[in-house]
Amino acid sequence: MKLYGFFRSSAAFRVRIALNLKGISYEQASIHLRRNDQDAPAYRALNPQGLVPALEDDGQVFIQSMAIIEYLDETHPEPPFLPGHPADRARVRGLAQIIGCDIHPINNLRILRYLADPLGHDAKTVGIWYNHWIAKGFESLEALLSRDEQTGAFCHGDAPGLADICLVPQCFNARRYELDMTPYPTLRRIFDNCMKLPAFEKARPEAQPDAE
Amino acid sequence: MKLYGFFRSSAAFRVRIALNLKGISYEQASIHLRRNDQDAPAYRALNPQGLVPALEDDGQVFIQSMAIIEYLDETHPEPPFLPGHPADRARVRGLAQIIGCDIHPINNLRILRYLADPLGHDAKTVGIWYNHWIAKGFESLEALLSRDEQTGAFCHGDAPGLADICLVPQCFNARRYELDMTPYPTLRRIFDNCMKLPAFEKARPEAQPDAE
Repeated sequence: MKLYGFFRSSAAFRVRIALNLKGISYEQASIHLRRNDQDAPAYRALNPQGLVPALEDDGQVFIQSMAIIEYLDETHPEPPFLPGHPADRARVRGLAQIIGCDIHPINNLRILRYLADPLGHDAKTVGIWYNHWIAKGFESLEALLSRDEQTGAFCHGDAPGLADICLVPQCFNARRYELDMTPYPTLRRIFDNCMKLPAFEKARPEAQPDAE
Repeated sequence: MKLYGFFRSSAAFRVRIALNLKGISYEQASIHLRRNDQDAPAYRALNPQGLVPALEDDGQVFIQSMAIIEYLDETHPEPPFLPGHPADRARVRGLAQIIGCDIHPINNLRILRYLADPLGHDAKTVGIWYNHWIAKGFESLEALLSRDEQTGAFCHGDAPGLADICLVPQCFNARRYELDMTPYPTLRRIFDNCMKLPAFEKARPEAQPDAE
């Protein structure tokens, strides 16, 4: 498999974790987002959306990180990223989508760029925007996780899954923008448990070949 | 089942379509977003994220529309919302997530409100923002759908599924903000095919009990 990503992309980070958890070997192609590699015609031909990640497997290209992770889960069932029962699966997908839909896309590079130009906001205002949406999402996640006995060492039980795969990169972003994590003890606990696992550790931005 | 939604919410609209396609009867509770019903303690207890939709089934509450739709698909398999093969499922989920992650959340009410206050933008600027992100997403979808022979009368083959369920409400939003749909002939064709089906037609915002 070949992963088109970027060390700093948290959506690509998710897929790196997923590939590592499944024990799948893969090569990486770096799409440098700040240099706009994602707009090059060759990459647009692969992924007309011009975002990362994209995963090439067996001649086919898959886009959208949560779709890619479910694809990996369906084609490589062990260890599973989702529990067995539909209600539990919906819980895990819902937690993942709080991050994958309602935090990360709002803080994506293209949005931050639009806030700067044409909207004319400075870096400080953009930073407040960034942390505002992480905090909104993390408040919801903390409430949902802390009140539910299905939460274990990880978001659902005692093995990492789809929600943890989305949570960890988002925590890295929060740390980068110096969000105060004090109000989210459950998220911090789960983050720490994840980072003890080599699959998460090896997927860190700083550990990637294209890290700056 | 009980759907907590709002006639104007396109994420709730998706779930209404899904319930109709499955032939599931449901009652609706209206959470009036402009009046901030989503912030009432009783609703926050159900859904700490304070967004709609939420679906109550058998004493459990599910959130995040795409997670809810997959839950309905797993608990009521006919007619299926996803094809059978993992690669095809990833294609459909990817198309749906272009809308569910990279268009809709960026144009959600809470984001539009933040653009107005604290950021101070007027309705015209907010309208340009709104259509900008729909256009970006629709360009990608048009490119992906028009070049792929798996696209049929609907986004994947000749039966409606998860991607169509997400597409139609987004087209309603585009129409409401008067986005020029000329560049998206494939999306228009699929939209027209969907709207011939009673499951989509009955889910329209204007047809809901809380429509204004």
